[in-house]
Amino acid sequence: MSLKVEFKYLNGFADSADFDAIAGKTELARSLLYENRANAAGNAFHGWVNLPFDYDKDEYCRIKAAAKKIRGDSEALVVIGIGGSYLGARAAIEFVKSKNYNVFGASPKVFFIGNTLSPVETSEILAYCEDHDFSVNVISKSGTTTEPAIAFRLFRELLVKKYGAEGAAARIYATTDANKGTLHDVACKFGYERFTVPDDVGGRYSVLTAVGLLPIAAAGVDIDALMAGARASLEAYLVPGLDKNDCLRYAAARNILLQKGRSVEMMISYEPDFTMMNEWLKQLFGESEGKDGKGIFPASAIYSTDLHSLGQYVQQGQRLMFETVNVFDTPKADITVGADASNADGLNFLAGSALSKINSSAFMGTVLAHTEGGVPNIIVRGSAMDEFTLGELIYFYEKACAVSGYILGVNPFDQPGVEMYKRNMFALLNKPGYEDAKARLVAKYGNDII
Amino acid sequence: MSLKVEFKYLNGFADSADFDAIAGKTELARSLLYENRANAAGNAFHGWVNLPFDYDKDEYCRIKAAAKKIRGDSEALVVIGIGGSYLGARAAIEFVKSKNYNVFGASPKVFFIGNTLSPVETSEILAYCEDHDFSVNVISKSGTTTEPAIAFRLFRELLVKKYGAEGAAARIYATTDANKGTLHDVACKFGYERFTVPDDVGGRYSVLTAVGLLPIAAAGVDIDALMAGARASLEAYLVPGLDKNDCLRYAAARNILLQKGRSVEMMISYEPDFTMMNEWLKQLFGESEGKDGKGIFPASAIYSTDLHSLGQYVQQGQRLMFETVNVFDTPKADITVGADASNADGLNFLAGSALSKINSSAFMGTVLAHTEGGVPNIIVRGSAMDEFTLGELIYFYEKACAVSGYILGVNPFDQPGVEMYKRNMFALLNKPGYEDAKARLVAKYGNDII
Repeated sequence: MSLKVEFKYLNGFADSADFDAIAGKTELARSLLYENRANAAGNAFHGWVNLPFDYDKDEYCRIKAAAKKIRGDSEALVVIGIGGSYLGARAAIEFVKSKNYNVFGASPKVFFIGNTLSPVETSEILAYCEDHDFSVNVISKSGTTTEPAIAFRLFRELLVKKYGAEGAAARIYATTDANKGTLHDVACKFGYERFTVPDDVGGRYSVLTAVGLLPIAAAGVDIDALMAGARASLEAYLVPGLDKNDCLRYAAARNILLQKGRSVEMMISYEPDFTMMNEWLKQLFGESEGKDGKGIFPASAIYSTDLHSLGQYVQQGQRLMFETVNVFDTPKADITVGADASNADGLNFLAGSALSKINSSAFMGTVLAHTEGGVPNIIVRGSAMDEFTLGELIYFYEKACAVSGYILGVNPFDQPGVEMYKRNMFALLNKPGYEDAKARLVAKYGNDII
Repeated sequence: MSLKVEFKYLNGFADSADFDAIAGKTELARSLLYENRANAAGNAFHGWVNLPFDYDKDEYCRIKAAAKKIRGDSEALVVIGIGGSYLGARAAIEFVKSKNYNVFGASPKVFFIGNTLSPVETSEILAYCEDHDFSVNVISKSGTTTEPAIAFRLFRELLVKKYGAEGAAARIYATTDANKGTLHDVACKFGYERFTVPDDVGGRYSVLTAVGLLPIAAAGVDIDALMAGARASLEAYLVPGLDKNDCLRYAAARNILLQKGRSVEMMISYEPDFTMMNEWLKQLFGESEGKDGKGIFPASAIYSTDLHSLGQYVQQGQRLMFETVNVFDTPKADITVGADASNADGLNFLAGSALSKINSSAFMGTVLAHTEGGVPNIIVRGSAMDEFTLGELIYFYEKACAVSGYILGVNPFDQPGVEMYKRNMFALLNKPGYEDAKARLVAKYGNDII
């Protein structure tokens, strides 16, 4: 276990009396995932709790085999999914490999599509796939979500055109419900290899199921180490008690800060390859907690880059945020700054320094500047940007989010608000069954919304 | 002029009495950019106001010539800059071309570096440049900002290694102070072609100077049309009066919403190619307004993608935000959804529909869902994601930000808070002259911060 969480930069913002006051609620929240599960809101979606041990070992072997086949026969893997069927896999690949993974000649490239209705990006990737061998991993519990369903129509059509019906079927991997639903049925009918979205794991908690693991493995990431990291994290954060369990303490700290008016959490990293992890975290926390008029608004930044854009606000703007900073002791690569005879830029005091050391000093300098400026900081420190640490982080945040949501008093496992734009969209698109909804909208807003 | 700003989705959140109440302050703020300039905070940085007409025409021709040379002799252009010397150019290239510009074989690729201390991304791009012909555009008013200065050392060294001292000098373009400073002096000494960061235009307002225009032109974007769009916008938003000038009205609306407790502005688009424009906007507004304990916290999302991550929070979480949505009438590309004999996915009601039409319906459905959920929406509508519209948008937002900042009562053109992390960083890195700062930090926090 490598993760360490540092709370000392909460001094002056959250003290031991605050933690004592919330300890009971935190213990109750923790128990809702274990001995008190029967009373927990959303307990039908607790499958992630033991997932790092408790998963389908046969399917796991099939995931590895499918990834190997894709790596052998495809220059591109097109991953079709949205929300939890998109962010985890992309975040993991960029964390371990690179956010520029597709730029510098990796094979297969991994394209994520079906997460937008923009014709622009979809066209670009279709054009690329015209000229390159590709496979498709379509990920949808139901098969009827608009964005991925449209993308699947488009890319399946191209596969059939290029490889024929049978050849296409051999290049489509469907991750979907085990027993029912549109995508399940289509996959059975056409003989696509199927993987399972478990019934008891919600989308934003699904990265360690086939939903995430197949694209992650296809990109050449070691999923054994990923799962091992998650298991280490599971075991490290089982013990009750705020003083013994940093995961519970982090969940408690978030709620203390919220109660004190800190309505925005900024997820921070000093590594650009963490960018999509920030997006995964924003879904995890935002969708779990943002309901009933409650919740911390999730935002993010990559420093030092964004110290030159958002930094001014964080230092001196409204005091409505706190920062959770993800740092890693060992960089993926390093560079030593050289000496310059003229020293025109005045940087010779850095000659011989590793860039990673300078980056670390920027991190520590910023933590001190921001806390002195009135912004509480929490540090989550991992050993390296590798698979094991990623597994640790994923489980740490999943559990912290669940506990935090229970402390807040919401159901961390539903997302009723996501349906509302869809209903309006279907009405405006004249979907059968939505005639009344359309009539209501037109009566209220007039014809120019159509 | 194509921009239209729609305020009707503020109904119930900001009414005509609110606008009447703020009209006087808004008019005063407007006048601070013109007839009342002498009394304006930060008036030394008003150069952007007339920039679309009032720029160095000779330098503009040299920008085009340099861009042409780079396109002829380089497979990659390495743009070294941070903050305002980074975001505008990248945002413009991705807006007009694609966020995947570097993925699909464009030449020259355009890499933005010197905006991070991460050794990871820097190493990747150095490695690429080992094997490919490249040029460097280094952008820094002073030449001493740590991030770009380190990157310039690294890439200059590689250029000299590959092309010799003279060959390297012919591939380095320095955008810097016209008369003084480290980078200016180095450029003169080694004979780099020089472009100017004007004294009266701050970094976040500099995209229409050489700072932005050279990399933008090098990527094959039409800068004549960009400047023409900015001129159209300048003229359209000169007239005083909230009722006649949507730029002033938008600035006023932001302050009304802030006064009513809307402390977060989410910049929204339905096109992934707007992602970096969101980042540019976050610097523009965050750095201009986030001071003196004031300001709207700038956040962003790309929909419908993020409706499946942040959407739940926006629909039903704390009511602390409003949304400013950027939409475009004509998409850069389009796709028609085909019919499917089985209609297994239930999408045949969309057969024959353009994807852009479905995207538009998602937009309108979401505006209605979010406003009904208690989130005010403002729509900024342009004709297309082309150079002219981009010029319009840039000037619209620059002016709105300045006026908004003056209404708020801050100096929209300084950024004193950005220095604070740097001072700590230099102390931790043992920079000469920072001994006292270091002693203070160690006394306060102990030795483990070093």
